[in-house]
Amino acid sequence: MEIDSDTNDCQANTADSEPEFTMATEIFNKDTTIELRKKHIGPSCKVFFGKDPIKIIRAEGQYMYNEKGERYLDCINNVAHVGHSHPYVVNAAVKQMELLNTNSRFLHDNLVQYAQRLTATLPEQLSVCYFVNSGSEANDLALRLARQHTGNEDIITLNHAYHGHVSSLIDISPYKFLQLDKSAKKDFVHVASTPDIYRGKFREDHPDPATAYADEVKDIMQEAHRNGRKIAAFIAESLQSCGGQIIPPAGYFQKVAQHVRKAGGVFIADEVQVGFGRVGKHFWAFQLQGEDFTPDIVTMGKPIGNGHPLSCVVTTKEIAESFMSSGMEYFNTFGGNPVSCAIGNAVLDVIEKQDLQGNADKVGNYLIELLNEQKEKHPLIGDIRGVGLFVGVDMVKDRVKRTPATAEAQHVIYKLKEHNILLSADGPHRNILKFKPPMCFSEEDAKFAVDNIDEILTAIENATMVKTDNVESNAADNGACKRKMTSYDNEHSSGENGHHEHTNGNGAACGQQIVHSHDSHKVSCKRIRT
Amino acid sequence: MEIDSDTNDCQANTADSEPEFTMATEIFNKDTTIELRKKHIGPSCKVFFGKDPIKIIRAEGQYMYNEKGERYLDCINNVAHVGHSHPYVVNAAVKQMELLNTNSRFLHDNLVQYAQRLTATLPEQLSVCYFVNSGSEANDLALRLARQHTGNEDIITLNHAYHGHVSSLIDISPYKFLQLDKSAKKDFVHVASTPDIYRGKFREDHPDPATAYADEVKDIMQEAHRNGRKIAAFIAESLQSCGGQIIPPAGYFQKVAQHVRKAGGVFIADEVQVGFGRVGKHFWAFQLQGEDFTPDIVTMGKPIGNGHPLSCVVTTKEIAESFMSSGMEYFNTFGGNPVSCAIGNAVLDVIEKQDLQGNADKVGNYLIELLNEQKEKHPLIGDIRGVGLFVGVDMVKDRVKRTPATAEAQHVIYKLKEHNILLSADGPHRNILKFKPPMCFSEEDAKFAVDNIDEILTAIENATMVKTDNVESNAADNGACKRKMTSYDNEHSSGENGHHEHTNGNGAACGQQIVHSHDSHKVSCKRIRT
Repeated sequence: MEIDSDTNDCQANTADSEPEFTMATEIFNKDTTIELRKKHIGPSCKVFFGKDPIKIIRAEGQYMYNEKGERYLDCINNVAHVGHSHPYVVNAAVKQMELLNTNSRFLHDNLVQYAQRLTATLPEQLSVCYFVNSGSEANDLALRLARQHTGNEDIITLNHAYHGHVSSLIDISPYKFLQLDKSAKKDFVHVASTPDIYRGKFREDHPDPATAYADEVKDIMQEAHRNGRKIAAFIAESLQSCGGQIIPPAGYFQKVAQHVRKAGGVFIADEVQVGFGRVGKHFWAFQLQGEDFTPDIVTMGKPIGNGHPLSCVVTTKEIAESFMSSGMEYFNTFGGNPVSCAIGNAVLDVIEKQDLQGNADKVGNYLIELLNEQKEKHPLIGDIRGVGLFVGVDMVKDRVKRTPATAEAQHVIYKLKEHNILLSADGPHRNILKFKPPMCFSEEDAKFAVDNIDEILTAIENATMVKTDNVESNAADNGACKRKMTSYDNEHSSGENGHHEHTNGNGAACGQQIVHSHDSHKVSCKRIRT
Repeated sequence: MEIDSDTNDCQANTADSEPEFTMATEIFNKDTTIELRKKHIGPSCKVFFGKDPIKIIRAEGQYMYNEKGERYLDCINNVAHVGHSHPYVVNAAVKQMELLNTNSRFLHDNLVQYAQRLTATLPEQLSVCYFVNSGSEANDLALRLARQHTGNEDIITLNHAYHGHVSSLIDISPYKFLQLDKSAKKDFVHVASTPDIYRGKFREDHPDPATAYADEVKDIMQEAHRNGRKIAAFIAESLQSCGGQIIPPAGYFQKVAQHVRKAGGVFIADEVQVGFGRVGKHFWAFQLQGEDFTPDIVTMGKPIGNGHPLSCVVTTKEIAESFMSSGMEYFNTFGGNPVSCAIGNAVLDVIEKQDLQGNADKVGNYLIELLNEQKEKHPLIGDIRGVGLFVGVDMVKDRVKRTPATAEAQHVIYKLKEHNILLSADGPHRNILKFKPPMCFSEEDAKFAVDNIDEILTAIENATMVKTDNVESNAADNGACKRKMTSYDNEHSSGENGHHEHTNGNGAACGQQIVHSHDSHKVSCKRIRT
């Protein structure tokens, strides 16, 4: 099957609702579905929009359809990476399923070919793969690798981090364990501040937030050492997702890695949510930090199989050999089976041949530009941050205090749903509107979503008597939409139309130039060589 | 697509090798595959027959084909439960993949229908499902459920148990952690003896091994309590697999459950390897213990999706509500997606419509009968134990001492491979030949495998000068192939031809009658109502 490489629209926009077909895929009416779900599915498993959940019965590209054939624009499903139900991926799956699906104790070419292709996207030293079934399995294995390699136990994690649902990962996910009582933090876990330059400890007006945040990690390790503890790993998402779409200042990872390695630990980059070209200019989000940065372990998940349960851990030969030295076999029943690998290969094909990375860059920049226009207009928007199709809208009640506008963010989400747009809110205060759509998301989709957000925010502001003409003076007063350039920035330019300058403090170690631009739209976000 | 319900042969026996097709599925020659695997796949991930691994490129039913089109009889892949590449399952997957694959935060009928069907196979109180991607995820979640529900931490596990590869499960898997140093056992883990009546602490000559083994669990809990510890759960495979194909005496689980619940803990039955009709007479292996036994949590995996990464935890409403009471959402990205559930439903369809449970019973009994004939002939066979298509051949150097014949078992495995039969050896001494074939395994397959084992054992015995005419007197002398009936047995019958009587001591609490019989072959294993 050929992929059409001439277009970024990986799926035709099929607006017709095909009623017979859609009805045929419904087994129960919606009320019965809800009733059965209440009876037979664990109540901890939540649905979106709990009071009036959505029943989706088919999807194509960036569109999902409910049981009535009504179309929703999908701005949230980062798992359906190359587009829902992509026929090329389905075809690859079918062909392999018809032939063979077995475990990796038998030799199979799909496994080694996929490993070869995945490692080719990474720095050379990251050459050894372990295939697993979920991001949770990947992160758990990463911890095992780190502990076996270093002989140490302790893990440094970021505040608000989420790394998965198995026991070992709840332990290192403050996003989760802080919901329990304080005693839920285990002694081997050390929580460092999120490198959030908008709402964090060191902000955009700090001369060097990358160094400041990294120094905190160093201090934490020194304190741990004083208590007789030893560091196995620092783990962080390359961009923090559930924690609120946080983009760490460039240079931060290099400095942290330096401190962690000096302390005998390794650096784990969790790319489960943000890898596979989502950030546009790079295939991996950690590459935003600069070419001089290489993690010791990278974990992959969600988008890797376009919805198929597939994940991977990639590490160095040295760490893999340490892991083997225990003598303990690592066997994962489904991990790396020929079907999973065929699907993984197909996803790589589509990303490449349809230039979805280019699309993420182009459409992402356009989306950020549109959202920045909204920020000029709506005081409820405190910050727009993003790279590629990973974008956050930080909603605030007050731009000076940056008070999270949680209720307003939830209102936006619910109103968007009424307009058939699926968006979600996350972060510790659940006030960050979170864009992470399928990678075939178009400029028209971006415009449609943002126009609707504009309408909803206008209505909220009118209802609460916040006049939009206050915005300019607010913005001028509190500087919320201006981030001071750090001393490491030796070049920076303002986006036009007063676009928010998301120029992070990129330390001396960071020599990477990231200039987003495309023909038809203005640059909204620049990261500049130091 | 219709399933042919008139036949147990779920796959046509296609002996033709289709060379063009098979060649087309090879990307690299075998040497290159091996080389790439060495370079890019973690060395802890072992292949079968490491010195000369097998490259499998297609499979159907119970047969696998290498790159040359040579056919192997598969006696080991319990994951390909309804037969490799079953077209009905593939078709269900394809249809759903073309339509929709998304997460369980949207309503979908496949999810609730599958949950309804799965819970219908279980006692009524086991009514709430959590869908996950692997047996490891399932067992980890089971521990989380148990701990949240009981408020306790400690876990009692059986010696030689294996429950999965994530950190929390390595901790409770002596099969794994005993490979490390002794300090690898965590304080919250308590190891009870494997209820193995052949090589364990209490054997077939014990008047009531079920009670004796269960009392040991009680003693362990009392000791833990004295040390200020509290029990969250007892976990055991319903039949221990990696630990050596162990069939616990009936009544053991009931007594253990009584003790564990009294201590505030719950009973977790791990059905990952042995569920879904493999034992023949029952859908779940824990049901072999008697109708009066219901676990609090059941975990499922391997066969559930015929190779697709799918697993499930089923528990009671009470435990599910306790789990929810923490307020923490449980979200599993891929768990319970419409494709996984479509596949799960299709597997249930095939088991039912092709009566694979009946086939497991019939062929399993025949296989056990054939193996018992071999036991009469070969002193290297110390014990034959099994139910349905879960059968172990315990190889011994000496029937009196029951010394594990590890090297001989390995030799058998390697020789069988030369004869194109895939079998494996497991157990703490790796001396148990382990049958767990796809459920469409036929009597002809059983005969073919056993004839080959006969030939190989004869050759070993000839080479080592063990005369087969010694067997009878050995058997008579040491009673290795006779298990004394316990006081709880009020009916038992000898299999003909001196078949090994695997009548377990089933306690007073066990009122279950399991009489294996089929038309054309003699009964080799009876468990009798007390």
